[in-house]
Amino acid sequence: MSARDAFHQVVKTALIKEDWNITHDPYPLQAGTFDLAIDLGAEKTIAAERNGRKIAVEIKSFLGSSQITEFYSALGQFLVYRSALTIQEKERQLYLAVPRITYEKFFRLSFIENSQKEHHINLIVYDIDREEIVKWIP
Amino acid sequence: MSARDAFHQVVKTALIKEDWNITHDPYPLQAGTFDLAIDLGAEKTIAAERNGRKIAVEIKSFLGSSQITEFYSALGQFLVYRSALTIQEKERQLYLAVPRITYEKFFRLSFIENSQKEHHINLIVYDIDREEIVKWIP
Repeated sequence: MSARDAFHQVVKTALIKEDWNITHDPYPLQAGTFDLAIDLGAEKTIAAERNGRKIAVEIKSFLGSSQITEFYSALGQFLVYRSALTIQEKERQLYLAVPRITYEKFFRLSFIENSQKEHHINLIVYDIDREEIVKWIP
Repeated sequence: MSARDAFHQVVKTALIKEDWNITHDPYPLQAGTFDLAIDLGAEKTIAAERNGRKIAVEIKSFLGSSQITEFYSALGQFLVYRSALTIQEKERQLYLAVPRITYEKFFRLSFIENSQKEHHINLIVYDIDREEIVKWIP
């Protein structure tokens, strides 16, 4: 299993532990002529449901050599996905899942935190070793 | 010269033809602890001036295998750069420079055009062979 797939599995396990039902893996998101679920090389988006509440989760590993470059890509993807989701299934809320270490060392830097808030990026922070969600923002 | 560097040179030449004075290459943009001008693998941003009007230009080649994946990265980078620019030099306007072929085949797709308008992404469309700017948006 690739490292990316492993992180994907960790987030699924963590959501299931919190009684979420994984409904789509990957979640088939269409935007005009684009099938956004099968982007080349991109991490997959999954969908889950609990007590009628629906979410879609863009899972990022931040395994690359430049965190800021990965952030550009994650931010752009999140905004495009959110626009597509608003058209396709307005009630489903989008989250970006990031490892705890990335959250603590990178997302809490004030410039990045301001950017995350400015663009209303919802975060799921996950612990890789414990396979658990440690924080939902907001 | 790499293909990326060649596109970079094309945009510089095209701006000079329209009487812009290239003032910075790369343009040193700071955001908190980040020196955004030295992102690993990212194309460099340049700055130019004409009749007192100042611009910064994020040059993208869209040479990769997936245009939507490159768009995620270009969009995220543009938004981060614009935030940093607002703090550093508010009067300088940011543009994303894209090749004419990418503009015609990709940026005019309605979903992408909507996204470009939603996030107020200013575009410079350049012709690679003629080394000229064919369109400023807006």
